[in-house]
Amino acid sequence: MFDILRINTVTEQVERTTENSKRFLLGGRTLSSYLVSEEVPAACEPFGRKNKLFFCNGVLSGTTVSSSNRLSIGGKSPLTGGIKESNAGGIVGLRMAQQGLRTIVLEDTPAPDAPWKIIVIGKDKVEFVDGSFLVGKGVYEKSDLLNEKFGDKAGCVTIGPAGENLLFASGIACSDPHGVCSRYAGRGGLGAVMGAKRIIAMVILNDGEVKAEYNDIDAFRSSSKRIITLLKENPVSSKFTKYGTAAMVDICQSLRVLPTRNFTHGTMDGAEKINAQTMYDTIKERGGEGLTQHACMNPCAIQCSNVYPDKDGKLLCSPIEYETMALMGSNLCLKNLDTVAQMNRLANDAGVDTLDCGAAIGVAMEAGLAEFGDDKAAIAMMEDIRNQTPLGRILGSGCKVAAQVLGVRHAPHVLGQAIPAYEPRGTKGMAMTYLSSPMGADHTFGFTLRDEDVPTTKEGKVALSKKFQVIGSRMDAMGVCNFVRYSVRNDMSPLLDLIKARYDVEISTVEFDDFVKDTLRREHKFNGEAGITANEHRFAETFYEITQPETGEVIDITDEECAQARTW
Amino acid sequence: MFDILRINTVTEQVERTTENSKRFLLGGRTLSSYLVSEEVPAACEPFGRKNKLFFCNGVLSGTTVSSSNRLSIGGKSPLTGGIKESNAGGIVGLRMAQQGLRTIVLEDTPAPDAPWKIIVIGKDKVEFVDGSFLVGKGVYEKSDLLNEKFGDKAGCVTIGPAGENLLFASGIACSDPHGVCSRYAGRGGLGAVMGAKRIIAMVILNDGEVKAEYNDIDAFRSSSKRIITLLKENPVSSKFTKYGTAAMVDICQSLRVLPTRNFTHGTMDGAEKINAQTMYDTIKERGGEGLTQHACMNPCAIQCSNVYPDKDGKLLCSPIEYETMALMGSNLCLKNLDTVAQMNRLANDAGVDTLDCGAAIGVAMEAGLAEFGDDKAAIAMMEDIRNQTPLGRILGSGCKVAAQVLGVRHAPHVLGQAIPAYEPRGTKGMAMTYLSSPMGADHTFGFTLRDEDVPTTKEGKVALSKKFQVIGSRMDAMGVCNFVRYSVRNDMSPLLDLIKARYDVEISTVEFDDFVKDTLRREHKFNGEAGITANEHRFAETFYEITQPETGEVIDITDEECAQARTW
Repeated sequence: MFDILRINTVTEQVERTTENSKRFLLGGRTLSSYLVSEEVPAACEPFGRKNKLFFCNGVLSGTTVSSSNRLSIGGKSPLTGGIKESNAGGIVGLRMAQQGLRTIVLEDTPAPDAPWKIIVIGKDKVEFVDGSFLVGKGVYEKSDLLNEKFGDKAGCVTIGPAGENLLFASGIACSDPHGVCSRYAGRGGLGAVMGAKRIIAMVILNDGEVKAEYNDIDAFRSSSKRIITLLKENPVSSKFTKYGTAAMVDICQSLRVLPTRNFTHGTMDGAEKINAQTMYDTIKERGGEGLTQHACMNPCAIQCSNVYPDKDGKLLCSPIEYETMALMGSNLCLKNLDTVAQMNRLANDAGVDTLDCGAAIGVAMEAGLAEFGDDKAAIAMMEDIRNQTPLGRILGSGCKVAAQVLGVRHAPHVLGQAIPAYEPRGTKGMAMTYLSSPMGADHTFGFTLRDEDVPTTKEGKVALSKKFQVIGSRMDAMGVCNFVRYSVRNDMSPLLDLIKARYDVEISTVEFDDFVKDTLRREHKFNGEAGITANEHRFAETFYEITQPETGEVIDITDEECAQARTW
Repeated sequence: MFDILRINTVTEQVERTTENSKRFLLGGRTLSSYLVSEEVPAACEPFGRKNKLFFCNGVLSGTTVSSSNRLSIGGKSPLTGGIKESNAGGIVGLRMAQQGLRTIVLEDTPAPDAPWKIIVIGKDKVEFVDGSFLVGKGVYEKSDLLNEKFGDKAGCVTIGPAGENLLFASGIACSDPHGVCSRYAGRGGLGAVMGAKRIIAMVILNDGEVKAEYNDIDAFRSSSKRIITLLKENPVSSKFTKYGTAAMVDICQSLRVLPTRNFTHGTMDGAEKINAQTMYDTIKERGGEGLTQHACMNPCAIQCSNVYPDKDGKLLCSPIEYETMALMGSNLCLKNLDTVAQMNRLANDAGVDTLDCGAAIGVAMEAGLAEFGDDKAAIAMMEDIRNQTPLGRILGSGCKVAAQVLGVRHAPHVLGQAIPAYEPRGTKGMAMTYLSSPMGADHTFGFTLRDEDVPTTKEGKVALSKKFQVIGSRMDAMGVCNFVRYSVRNDMSPLLDLIKARYDVEISTVEFDDFVKDTLRREHKFNGEAGITANEHRFAETFYEITQPETGEVIDITDEECAQARTW
């Protein structure tokens, strides 16, 4: 029995119904992409009346299984023009579970000048509350105001000024366990979809009383412990515990795929100034509120998050992740973690994705609006985004639009979404993944890099990317953190056993992967109907024409190979 | 024998060859769209190495037939992402003919920081000349500098700062008979394609000695006279002689299709302040350089152009056309012709299309960046475009991109090209034409308005639009001014007789229309291969959802009807 709460943003009518299928059981991206593909006309405008915004928790939400409370947010993306699922940690999925909810759907779209509303969901109630006191404020202040009004244990989602102004790079910020809206469903512009619906925040009160029931509590406990053991034993996830994702800086620098100077290079002199060890040492040295091991949701045995403090030990930004260190660091030739942290904080406050904005600033620097390596100029551009100046709006629209407006050909994106922190000419596996993702360039979609014997060759990379598309998508498919994948990539039974113990529903590995593949098929089909053609599953032509200096490589992947990697 | 001059912008190699087919005979859009569809890979990037820029004069270029010296410029459009033919008056087509040229092709694309060049074409020579002295200057100053260097009888094409910076709304300015680059191939962003090729100007010297030869000079003279008689007798074109296209202001106001307030309304209180009579009276009253009857090319029996003087009688802008009066006037609720003229002048100097920028400013006003009706703010926005500020770059990217960046849903465009000056909900014939044009929204493509018994109904409009798609395209197909169509719409023989008399080539009406339809088929096919789907042959959803106040109409044209109007 999985409850779906439909909320009409025009009439304010609410309908709560119950579903019982395995898709609703699995939740996460399985459910989000199913609902988008069934209910949103593919050709509709992302900001129009026909788009919907879905919030889905996962199959283990509300339980004590490590890393299982991701929230999947889905809809049609203004950034890519296709289907989007973007997920975040935090406590919102848990609060939904405590209200007995698997899905919340925001439907219809009011007039552009309709009053801003907050939707408040509590035990047996859904209310529309005046949201005007939040308008124009940054996410940090919004977060404080929401806490004041609804308590710091409420699960909130909110948007920044960027989302209010419908910028394509706008994300949705979700409450973390400390009551700060800092966990971002960042990619794809879903914050702007929420903004178009004139919903400035949605609050799930902490008065839910629905508790997880278990078919076999002993089996559940034992499988749950097994997950923790697997996570702690795994060399990748255990390394993330100490260093977080920042561990990737050195790896990518040595593999020559660290995005540098608007994705023209794959190494940066001085990369060690922004690497994991520097971050670790800085946090330890400054002390105060700084933390190197920090959980975005409870419980979590990985705790890859961090709290980066300023020189006085006060929280500057939490977390800084590798992707941001690359896109807002090396990609701009910036070599100062304080700068990256400050930019990250501004991005979080503006409510924008750090990758898409970092890439856009790289494009702006290539256009000559500032010098690469100019910390002050880079921070000023982030302030422009925060303050919604014309330049800030250009940059907050992501790197594709920024490149269009600023006249730059070397635009690092696929389907309008910025390439993440792995230079694609140097890793053809990641290139294949970027090209074939239905969500636009996305590293989590099929992370091949650790498994590429020769990253620079495209040989075998269709198969490799597809293998990891399944491995990565499995986690999204059930609302479990992507980093759990390292521990279950060869054997999903620890997770499937948990489902069995909780619900008494048997799902075999094969059946589960069928859901995963069905989701991919649905997503690509939606995109085709939305008008996305094979032409868009390409990088900018410059990636095919200009060799990456460090590897001597260009993109040599053909449309046919890319089509194979999208066929399920 | 029709000569084609291929110029490689990277190697500076030049090749001159000769063709003899009827497509090369006809020239104009027939040839331009043929060459684009044959030589440009549809999926390529408009600013990439594979796009080409074609300059084609028409079948009667170099002769004394009235209104027959249009220059068709073709390539893949950055604005629409599809095929583009944009044509202009002026003397360039004539100068090409005098050099014995039917077509000039600019091939390949140098690096973005390659030096700016001027291509100089003279008798037996093609030279690349340093163009750095023109960089960053407005088109008026460029025009003066080109005259100084190459003589005021040379036929020049140049771009403004907008084209240099690859803005999507950039046009290509062509010399008029007075040596001013004021005749714009404005639509589709071809100025930016030229900019990407780092060609800041192309000059056809006035030293060409090729004269038109005639198979039957007497027959030619008599048919040529017949054209003049037809033009003078025709009530539409003869009215244009006195008032220019400005005559449309009153007509559209009375039909309730005068674009007003970012295409939300179809009438404007005070429209008479910007109508043809006001313009006529102002020009007459101010005297000086002002002219109400003015030819963009010689010879021309229509002379629909004008010279609008400032209060001191000095040339402010030439010409002001109805489309500009609507998009930069009523659409912004501006009621002062001096303001419109000043904005038009700034657009010409920046090198941008007045329609696409007018529509973008309307979107910016809807976004709240200025009040509708604020003359100073509107002029300031045009100065932003001229000065390439961030806001200016947004606006100079056309209304689709501007709406994306500024978060506006009611974006008046089809395929990214701004809707011309006829509110589509009030004229379903024009709506059908906008929707089905391969070039993006374009009134010249199939001008139904004068022939719609009930403009507000869609009944019969597929057939009506298709009828006028052929009638309008016939003129483009041979490099003849669109306004000649009124005189030959029921009988093309006066023009076909001229071809016979000049070349001794027999082209029947049926054969000619087969070329016209083949061109349309090629253009749509190119767009399909470029990735343009049926989804893009739509207006913004708001045009379907919100009634136009004056007519109570919404767009009710279906995808199926639109597909019929694109099928040939």
